[in-house]
Amino acid sequence: MDEFLTAEERELRGRVRNFVDKDLLPVINGYWERAEFPFELIPKLAALGIIGSTIQGFGCPGLSRLAAGMVATEISRGDGSVNTFLGVQSGLAMGTINMLGSQEQKERWLPEMAALGKIGAFALTEPDHGSDSVALETSARRDGDSYIISGRKRWIGNASMADVVIIFARDADDAKVKAFVMERNDDGTYPAGYSTEVITGKIGKRAVLQPDITLDNVRVPARNRLTECHSFKDVTRVLTSTRSGASWESLGHAIAAYEAAVAYSKSRQQFGRPIASFQLVQNKLANMLAELTAMQLICFRLAVLAEDGRMTGPMASLAKMHTAQKARWICSEARDMLGGNGVLLENHVARHMTDMEVVSTYEGTDSIQSLLVGREITGISAFS
Amino acid sequence: MDEFLTAEERELRGRVRNFVDKDLLPVINGYWERAEFPFELIPKLAALGIIGSTIQGFGCPGLSRLAAGMVATEISRGDGSVNTFLGVQSGLAMGTINMLGSQEQKERWLPEMAALGKIGAFALTEPDHGSDSVALETSARRDGDSYIISGRKRWIGNASMADVVIIFARDADDAKVKAFVMERNDDGTYPAGYSTEVITGKIGKRAVLQPDITLDNVRVPARNRLTECHSFKDVTRVLTSTRSGASWESLGHAIAAYEAAVAYSKSRQQFGRPIASFQLVQNKLANMLAELTAMQLICFRLAVLAEDGRMTGPMASLAKMHTAQKARWICSEARDMLGGNGVLLENHVARHMTDMEVVSTYEGTDSIQSLLVGREITGISAFS
Amino acid sequence: MDEFLTAEERELRGRVRNFVDKDLLPVINGYWERAEFPFELIPKLAALGIIGSTIQGFGCPGLSRLAAGMVATEISRGDGSVNTFLGVQSGLAMGTINMLGSQEQKERWLPEMAALGKIGAFALTEPDHGSDSVALETSARRDGDSYIISGRKRWIGNASMADVVIIFARDADDAKVKAFVMERNDDGTYPAGYSTEVITGKIGKRAVLQPDITLDNVRVPARNRLTECHSFKDVTRVLTSTRSGASWESLGHAIAAYEAAVAYSKSRQQFGRPIASFQLVQNKLANMLAELTAMQLICFRLAVLAEDGRMTGPMASLAKMHTAQKARWICSEARDMLGGNGVLLENHVARHMTDMEVVSTYEGTDSIQSLLVGREITGISAFS
Amino acid sequence: MDEFLTAEERELRGRVRNFVDKDLLPVINGYWERAEFPFELIPKLAALGIIGSTIQGFGCPGLSRLAAGMVATEISRGDGSVNTFLGVQSGLAMGTINMLGSQEQKERWLPEMAALGKIGAFALTEPDHGSDSVALETSARRDGDSYIISGRKRWIGNASMADVVIIFARDADDAKVKAFVMERNDDGTYPAGYSTEVITGKIGKRAVLQPDITLDNVRVPARNRLTECHSFKDVTRVLTSTRSGASWESLGHAIAAYEAAVAYSKSRQQFGRPIASFQLVQNKLANMLAELTAMQLICFRLAVLAEDGRMTGPMASLAKMHTAQKARWICSEARDMLGGNGVLLENHVARHMTDMEVVSTYEGTDSIQSLLVGREITGISAFS
Repeated sequence: MDEFLTAEERELRGRVRNFVDKDLLPVINGYWERAEFPFELIPKLAALGIIGSTIQGFGCPGLSRLAAGMVATEISRGDGSVNTFLGVQSGLAMGTINMLGSQEQKERWLPEMAALGKIGAFALTEPDHGSDSVALETSARRDGDSYIISGRKRWIGNASMADVVIIFARDADDAKVKAFVMERNDDGTYPAGYSTEVITGKIGKRAVLQPDITLDNVRVPARNRLTECHSFKDVTRVLTSTRSGASWESLGHAIAAYEAAVAYSKSRQQFGRPIASFQLVQNKLANMLAELTAMQLICFRLAVLAEDGRMTGPMASLAKMHTAQKARWICSEARDMLGGNGVLLENHVARHMTDMEVVSTYEGTDSIQSLLVGREITGISAFS
Repeated sequence: MDEFLTAEERELRGRVRNFVDKDLLPVINGYWERAEFPFELIPKLAALGIIGSTIQGFGCPGLSRLAAGMVATEISRGDGSVNTFLGVQSGLAMGTINMLGSQEQKERWLPEMAALGKIGAFALTEPDHGSDSVALETSARRDGDSYIISGRKRWIGNASMADVVIIFARDADDAKVKAFVMERNDDGTYPAGYSTEVITGKIGKRAVLQPDITLDNVRVPARNRLTECHSFKDVTRVLTSTRSGASWESLGHAIAAYEAAVAYSKSRQQFGRPIASFQLVQNKLANMLAELTAMQLICFRLAVLAEDGRMTGPMASLAKMHTAQKARWICSEARDMLGGNGVLLENHVARHMTDMEVVSTYEGTDSIQSLLVGREITGISAFS
Repeated sequence: MDEFLTAEERELRGRVRNFVDKDLLPVINGYWERAEFPFELIPKLAALGIIGSTIQGFGCPGLSRLAAGMVATEISRGDGSVNTFLGVQSGLAMGTINMLGSQEQKERWLPEMAALGKIGAFALTEPDHGSDSVALETSARRDGDSYIISGRKRWIGNASMADVVIIFARDADDAKVKAFVMERNDDGTYPAGYSTEVITGKIGKRAVLQPDITLDNVRVPARNRLTECHSFKDVTRVLTSTRSGASWESLGHAIAAYEAAVAYSKSRQQFGRPIASFQLVQNKLANMLAELTAMQLICFRLAVLAEDGRMTGPMASLAKMHTAQKARWICSEARDMLGGNGVLLENHVARHMTDMEVVSTYEGTDSIQSLLVGREITGISAFS
Repeated sequence: MDEFLTAEERELRGRVRNFVDKDLLPVINGYWERAEFPFELIPKLAALGIIGSTIQGFGCPGLSRLAAGMVATEISRGDGSVNTFLGVQSGLAMGTINMLGSQEQKERWLPEMAALGKIGAFALTEPDHGSDSVALETSARRDGDSYIISGRKRWIGNASMADVVIIFARDADDAKVKAFVMERNDDGTYPAGYSTEVITGKIGKRAVLQPDITLDNVRVPARNRLTECHSFKDVTRVLTSTRSGASWESLGHAIAAYEAAVAYSKSRQQFGRPIASFQLVQNKLANMLAELTAMQLICFRLAVLAEDGRMTGPMASLAKMHTAQKARWICSEARDMLGGNGVLLENHVARHMTDMEVVSTYEGTDSIQSLLVGREITGISAFS
């Protein structure tokens, strides 16, 4: 991979790896077990210079697509919850403002978010609308200088601790989907009518909080409506731009699981020899490496195409579908190879495996992605 | 299945189902999340009349193999941790005493254990000896009327709360593996030198405790040595008798996951219709049901063969390998079908899926089982 | 399996096995290679006393479902083409006459067919109607004492050499599907307007001929219309009764491939030892045996249910889907284990593997079967 | 792919595609069915300017690795037998002379072979030594100006029609493996003691002949010993250089099968609509395309590494293992999608599927390749 990165990007990677090894890995299992967010990592994350990712200006690092993917891979090699936190902050929340906000709106929010002085959330999914979020039901009604928003959202990462919540709602005037930026009050409380309930009992990504939101006549200033979001099509542009994130994340989990499996196979003795000497183990490792190599090449290729502006939605879907499938499989094989030790957080594979369950679902399950690709291949929609 | 059960067995099944629905399911997710054992269920479990399973006499129910399997299936449909607790108590601890103890020893321990007045543990696995537990290193040295036992054990279910711990150790006199029953002191403390550390950070079966044990010159009365355990071969007999338990347990998890998936597919709406109407969903359900049916038939057949005394070790291995593979796959498909909701304990599938990870490992991973079967087919050992 | 068969059935099995080993296997590869039907086997097949299978009376053996399945398994262990020939003769052609013919019609055709004095064919499938044969387009128009039939049929086993061809056509009077028995003329020629073209270039079941038929105003006596066939529902009954045949056939192919793989693994030396000693080989064999065992139990169970009149269409579909999938997989694994030798007819696995491709398709592909089962599970049709 | 090819390479690809569509596809099924080599194509193949592939000079085209791979892909999209013929001619026979011959030997044979005026064969594999050909038993004994060679070879492509047969034999003097070029006599007969028997009954690659050879004191001039072949290590270099060929070939078969499946799905109607509109079909197509894309990227990457001299043996093994697995799977899915029509040569998928069976075996099965990769990963050999 090295040959594709600039010296500066390699230096960045070193910094991220160092953070993962020194700061993240020693503490993350405890947060995962307790289902708490690791606030202690925020200053260190801010110092990495990665928040905002590919966004140019506004205090953001303006990474290339490849560098951004590499960063997501390295973070995910550490932990999926932290990567989701960053994905929500950089890709979804800041990305939406960057793609759909006015110049003034970008200046208002992005620099502080890039410094992690403000945390963002992206409230799109609703209880009854996952893959078909186009049908969302949350409504926004203009009332003087404000919009009044009502509805329910589900699985909204960071929503209970965000300073800036981007809420997608259907404008009562024209029935189009618009984006509204809800901010905390000056005293740190949330506007009246905004309440969250953290989803408990997750088996993966337990260290990132993804609450449900109830919006009961929440008032948002009209000037907080993102000016360039005119309909759901604009939302789709944001989602397409971030969908490749799940591919890099899958790659990170898969690398972590593969490397843990190789290391374990060399140290674990059974029947008087390292299990790495068993054919069944080698066969698994070889097949894991082959799939991993293919995933890596797909992620690279996607980054090149995205950088050139040639990445389409179906391409991102194909990559997400493939990498999530394979990462799930690699994690499962690795966990298997670790035997009983594979179900313990201390060996990390278990965490990567359960985190991958979440990745395999979000931004569209395997089935949905396959039908998006299938529509592109055949010209026929098979799901609606 | 009904046609294969007697009226009495059907009545028993109803009782167990009722316990699962009324007592177990409403509370289990909390225990799983907190990684605590549900002591509150002990009296209700005792009242079911299932402890001791196939053991005849000594206050045990003397179930047929089929009835015993059916009970394990029903309990696992509820929860895997509770089933493991029962498997350790009935199959491993009581089963060992029943198969390897003298008449006096059986009378001494079994009735109280059958009433759950005493909880048992089975300490065989060691940190360096999982699948090759034949090589165990824990030692027992005769000293007057006692044996002095030293060594380390790992993954010992119930070990931190058991009243009766069966410890397998190598007799210094003849280097043979023997079984020793260590009991709590009258004041409820454990004998000097016996200490346990609960394994934390498990991602499955979180509601059953499986501590590591350190044995530092622990003194056990000589009369507590099980008289009919002369070498590892006797241990193997116990393990063979219980290995079919993992098959029934796998069946239980698979049924639970399948049924949850069917129910979800009928109620979950996407794109304006129940997802049960999608071809991809129906294809998954059909294939899940096919594998489930095959698992069921394998479990039944194994019970018939075991009842007739014709079940061999390789048969049990084949069944364990197959049912664990397929249950893992069914749970994974079900979890997939539930989308994001599939990673939440409240929908139960996530718990069954992660519990199955533990089942797929214990009593021998897929790889080991396949080599045990392979040895039977080819007459050649490929693992030692 | 033995324990489920009567002494008489075991004797029958011995006879069939003997035929397979002595008469069939030594000659079949040549016929397969040349894509010719092995007429030389007809007298020996007739002598086995298996033609007519489960039909009672009319010179048929009236086998139990289990015995019939066992026979199909044994024949398929030998060769798939011959089994298809028999399936067309006994199950489809004679089965239709038995289920949908009058007493007089049964007496007219069945005894001679049971002696293989007359060969039958079953002409249902059309070029444009495979899985949805309910939509068939062939028409029959009453004209005095005859029906005049026109249309095209495809993949009709035995059609170019049959004495008795059952043609399904839509009656112009009521638009219902009826069954017509077309016979050869006394001079051995076919009635005017009936022509066949043998499908060439098949990669499986090359030793059985499955021509396309063109029907151009073919005249069939009115008394040859099967009196109890009133609509497509009646055809469905026949298809359901024979669908389990594909399951037994799959079992036969899988057993043949598995046994060949075991034998090969023991005799083939690589790196100075039999490949049976390799973990990868043993793992494959163990998994093959596990799937084979499951297939066997499914076939048995289906036979018991069919014998009791409790087998439903979806059950037959589930069994066909599962056994065909697994047999295909087992053949593929076996062929793999044989390395380069696996692609040669002389080692038999190649033939079983390619024959299984045909089985996996006929009477409904995997996809269709899964949707038939899915409809049963969900109550919703996802294919029409 | 276009962007990676030069204008000249694109022109070459057009020429090859034209040959495939106009000359190859219209005739190949007949040859395959009859198991005959299509001699009629030789002049047209010669005219393509591809023989000799990457060899520089001696009348060879000196293609880049990428162009060579692209040619193999295009030919395999047409037919696997022809590709094997070319692989033997260009990669194995000419490649060996180019890598292990002296300047004089190269001049003596390569130009005429590049014009297809002489056909080559590569005789390495023996009946008892497939994957462990290092242990070969054929012997060569120096006798004056000749070597006298005895032994048996198996699966030697072109051996019954070659003008130039490269025979690997163990030199009696030093027990090292050497390479000897046996030529036809001037009258077109083969040297005394050389006899071939064409392997019959193949189910794949039926249009290329791969005979067994018996060598009974065959006399080869000493000056025909390739001067730079000193031991089996040199043979390994040739095999490594050609192993990537099987990856490109797999890619070609996979593309052909995928494209046939897409086309079929759009034209085939069932239940009143194209099957391309079914979710199950689209899901298959999407997954096929994803694997195909990954294969393509792996082949490209391998070509880049090979061009740079950085491709190692284990890399080639990983690529071969992965691409062969996936191509086999893609062919199988395509064949499935075609239903009954999928088993007919006329729809081409059947031929690609069975040809892939041969590819998946030669130059090392999946198992062997995985152990070669596994040895690289773990540093431990698990097969010898």
